[in-house]
Amino acid sequence: MRFSLGCSLGYDVKVPTPFVFNVELAKLASQTIVSETLTLSPDCATERWTMPETGNRYIRITAPPGRFTLDYQAEVDLMPALEDPDAVTEVAAADIPLPTLVHLYPSRYCQSDKLQRLANRTFGAEQPGYARVTAICNWIHDNVDYVGGVSDELTSAFDTATERAGVCRDFAHLAISFCRALGIPARYVSAYAWRLDPPDFHAVIEAYLQGPNGPGWYLCDPTRKAAADGLARIGVARDAAEVAFASPFGAVDYDKPEVWIRALGPEQVEPPTTLAIRAE
Amino acid sequence: MRFSLGCSLGYDVKVPTPFVFNVELAKLASQTIVSETLTLSPDCATERWTMPETGNRYIRITAPPGRFTLDYQAEVDLMPALEDPDAVTEVAAADIPLPTLVHLYPSRYCQSDKLQRLANRTFGAEQPGYARVTAICNWIHDNVDYVGGVSDELTSAFDTATERAGVCRDFAHLAISFCRALGIPARYVSAYAWRLDPPDFHAVIEAYLQGPNGPGWYLCDPTRKAAADGLARIGVARDAAEVAFASPFGAVDYDKPEVWIRALGPEQVEPPTTLAIRAE
Amino acid sequence: MRFSLGCSLGYDVKVPTPFVFNVELAKLASQTIVSETLTLSPDCATERWTMPETGNRYIRITAPPGRFTLDYQAEVDLMPALEDPDAVTEVAAADIPLPTLVHLYPSRYCQSDKLQRLANRTFGAEQPGYARVTAICNWIHDNVDYVGGVSDELTSAFDTATERAGVCRDFAHLAISFCRALGIPARYVSAYAWRLDPPDFHAVIEAYLQGPNGPGWYLCDPTRKAAADGLARIGVARDAAEVAFASPFGAVDYDKPEVWIRALGPEQVEPPTTLAIRAE
Amino acid sequence: MRFSLGCSLGYDVKVPTPFVFNVELAKLASQTIVSETLTLSPDCATERWTMPETGNRYIRITAPPGRFTLDYQAEVDLMPALEDPDAVTEVAAADIPLPTLVHLYPSRYCQSDKLQRLANRTFGAEQPGYARVTAICNWIHDNVDYVGGVSDELTSAFDTATERAGVCRDFAHLAISFCRALGIPARYVSAYAWRLDPPDFHAVIEAYLQGPNGPGWYLCDPTRKAAADGLARIGVARDAAEVAFASPFGAVDYDKPEVWIRALGPEQVEPPTTLAIRAE
Repeated sequence: MRFSLGCSLGYDVKVPTPFVFNVELAKLASQTIVSETLTLSPDCATERWTMPETGNRYIRITAPPGRFTLDYQAEVDLMPALEDPDAVTEVAAADIPLPTLVHLYPSRYCQSDKLQRLANRTFGAEQPGYARVTAICNWIHDNVDYVGGVSDELTSAFDTATERAGVCRDFAHLAISFCRALGIPARYVSAYAWRLDPPDFHAVIEAYLQGPNGPGWYLCDPTRKAAADGLARIGVARDAAEVAFASPFGAVDYDKPEVWIRALGPEQVEPPTTLAIRAE
Repeated sequence: MRFSLGCSLGYDVKVPTPFVFNVELAKLASQTIVSETLTLSPDCATERWTMPETGNRYIRITAPPGRFTLDYQAEVDLMPALEDPDAVTEVAAADIPLPTLVHLYPSRYCQSDKLQRLANRTFGAEQPGYARVTAICNWIHDNVDYVGGVSDELTSAFDTATERAGVCRDFAHLAISFCRALGIPARYVSAYAWRLDPPDFHAVIEAYLQGPNGPGWYLCDPTRKAAADGLARIGVARDAAEVAFASPFGAVDYDKPEVWIRALGPEQVEPPTTLAIRAE
Repeated sequence: MRFSLGCSLGYDVKVPTPFVFNVELAKLASQTIVSETLTLSPDCATERWTMPETGNRYIRITAPPGRFTLDYQAEVDLMPALEDPDAVTEVAAADIPLPTLVHLYPSRYCQSDKLQRLANRTFGAEQPGYARVTAICNWIHDNVDYVGGVSDELTSAFDTATERAGVCRDFAHLAISFCRALGIPARYVSAYAWRLDPPDFHAVIEAYLQGPNGPGWYLCDPTRKAAADGLARIGVARDAAEVAFASPFGAVDYDKPEVWIRALGPEQVEPPTTLAIRAE
Repeated sequence: MRFSLGCSLGYDVKVPTPFVFNVELAKLASQTIVSETLTLSPDCATERWTMPETGNRYIRITAPPGRFTLDYQAEVDLMPALEDPDAVTEVAAADIPLPTLVHLYPSRYCQSDKLQRLANRTFGAEQPGYARVTAICNWIHDNVDYVGGVSDELTSAFDTATERAGVCRDFAHLAISFCRALGIPARYVSAYAWRLDPPDFHAVIEAYLQGPNGPGWYLCDPTRKAAADGLARIGVARDAAEVAFASPFGAVDYDKPEVWIRALGPEQVEPPTTLAIRAE
């Protein structure tokens, strides 16, 4: 399905300030970027880097004093593979590719090491595989309140496990922590999210599982707020620390970001899929 | 039922060291101290204080250098009131005696303020009263592993809520936190505990509830390790900070405490009571 | 010196809601209440309790639905004893009155048990007594930023020790924690604070020390924001958990509290005192 | 200087258990591996991976039930560049290579986001560059007690900042956190450490700085326990989570690891260097 999407970011800059942005779509087999434009105003030199192990695209600029804006728009074809959830199992520790092991380690906001017993007691008896990851996401949906403003950028999964409230970022961190605690590699995904209301940058997770066509990363959204087959991925990371959409190196005033995504062609009204979504 | 109980504490003291002990039985309507002896060796001057609001009995001595031991033994008649659990309800906020409100406040190891949502989500729909306190204790028994050595004297309910392992002290702190978060005054009880195996100082909780004969404190043991009708109470407190059995003011070497309690008269083999135990 | 002071609290109440207030001046030898009036609108039955061990005065009412206001005003003579700081030393553990030991225990927001090494390393070599408590308050003033809004009602001394920002409540909790970690009983004091700008309920600390006229509680304000000889005390407590100025038992909308205090008679322009202030 | 080094690890394995090891020396310009042997007993198939962005060498095996040992020994020439510390400055945010930015992000054990004010208040006025990193390591050496057993594998820099005790791992995490909080990329280094007593795997840090010959990673050891010019590097990482020397996937019994390193050729008795050590 084809989508048009983008964001507008605006800043009031006092002194020349370096920024790193991560707002462009990742280049992945499952999402074909039909067209995209990035407009900086005032225009300025950009430095670009694509992280080899993730495909995340980072841009660095130094914004001059005054008003600075970034506008990104793109058209993208999303072609997630939809698979039978029951056919998606877990990958044994001996078979997880060594480069993927970093997604088993605890990270800043995903203290899987402190959540071992909670994860094992709560999900240890679930059917291994996509079913268990779904059980984790369902549990979070059912046991954590989605409430804006109760968490902040310092909030971590260890807090959310007990405080039981947060936003998409917190839901994702907790889901990732539970997966890792159970031996399932998991990572954080920032995305443009179709049907997310109100529109914003969204966060979901991917778990590394064994599918009918081989092992790979499977999407899950513990907030259930977006259409899972309408997630256009920006970045994947150990957790939110690595994929901030904007990192200014200095104090700046900023507008609330505008983020949008809409389906092109006839709007589909299918119910949310219950299939396993593989989105690489 | 009559019990014989006691403890032996031993220390190697290097310099004259003040100690505060809280090992003697509290004087309560529900437990009659038939006899008791406290032996200090070498003998030394004691200063005594009974906390008016709790009945806890504190002793302070200054131990001279060398070997120092404390032996306490007592015979006590425990006469807990056993009441129909369904007749024990909660006390409305407007009716909790003002002096009892301190047992609604969060304390060092019982961060009820951080556990509000978790408590409400997990126990909010339970039948108010003794049934809800029992549900809390059952949940802790079922969801937290009793494991010696995984926690220490710094461990608090906020940790245990996520780490899901601990000893009687941790179980009690978590149960107290849940009660307070739900508006039920709750306090920490240190006790000699019949049938606790291995024998040790034990910790349980009391919740302030409305019984058929008026409001009062009801016992509950989230570990289920002792006979609830064989708890001889030493101290009640906001949490463990206030009722350490021994507080040396200085570095000393110490023996593992010996603690014992046995029933006098014909040993009873009744099943654990399912009645509400009121132990004041 | 005589002061006129008071507060106005306003609420929009939806259903009958119990409140506990702690806004009236404590009755102490060092502060004589010349006159006071408490006005509730609509008028309603009050239940009163003065905590024996602290002198804190608590009022409970049940506010009916609609607009509810409390106005308190008082005239008070403050007669703090001013003593030579060098004559104020520490009380040995063996000599601290047993009832005062509760102010050595860690409490919810004052984790003195986790701050032992930090306290000992930072203040262990200071001259014991009022000088050490002053050193603690100076260190906090110099090392923690006073910033509204960076902390909240869940913030504790353990957070502030590292995050290094907070308001008067956080400053007091950290000072209390350091004192207790060093063996100095310390408690939280809520007060009407002369020259605090903007006016608000203030929080300072008291440490239990040995003065030239015997042991007692000495005031210190780590924020240095108020005139230390113009603190009219409302409540003393283990920490902020016990002396909230208002505790509604239910959801209510509230106005920002109005708090005021002014000196009666000729305004004095003396510099802040450097003497030890004993305020019981 | 040439060193002979190695380690012996022993396990009692109950069921076939996958292990990942990271004990072999990294292949770096500044350390030439003259020879090395890895002996597994019983011998078993190994899978190897060198992380491209770090050079860390990981080995995975599946140990059969029974006794399992790993022995590694190597000879290595360490040729660290020694530079004038005053010539080593910081790299501006606009100039840090984009791939290096991951070492500015907070990680599991290095919560630089929560340590911003503490870092800025304590080290903000230090001379930028190697001098500031040295000031950080000196501060940690002076303010944190090196005490075995007070921390564990869950301890993080946020804990150590207040608890003020730990081992090399904790010292490194705190130093890394302070560097990152100040905008200096920093990473964790596991190493064979000459003159460390008792011998063990050691942990130090590297900070990314601007040297006279270009930007690069500079070593610092906040424990001051090893000879800084005798560190043979095994792995570099965001923090300890990524470079465990052994990660069994399952419960096993293990021996205390034996680790050793000795200088070959005439033993040098020079005082510890005060030059900046660049060790890539």
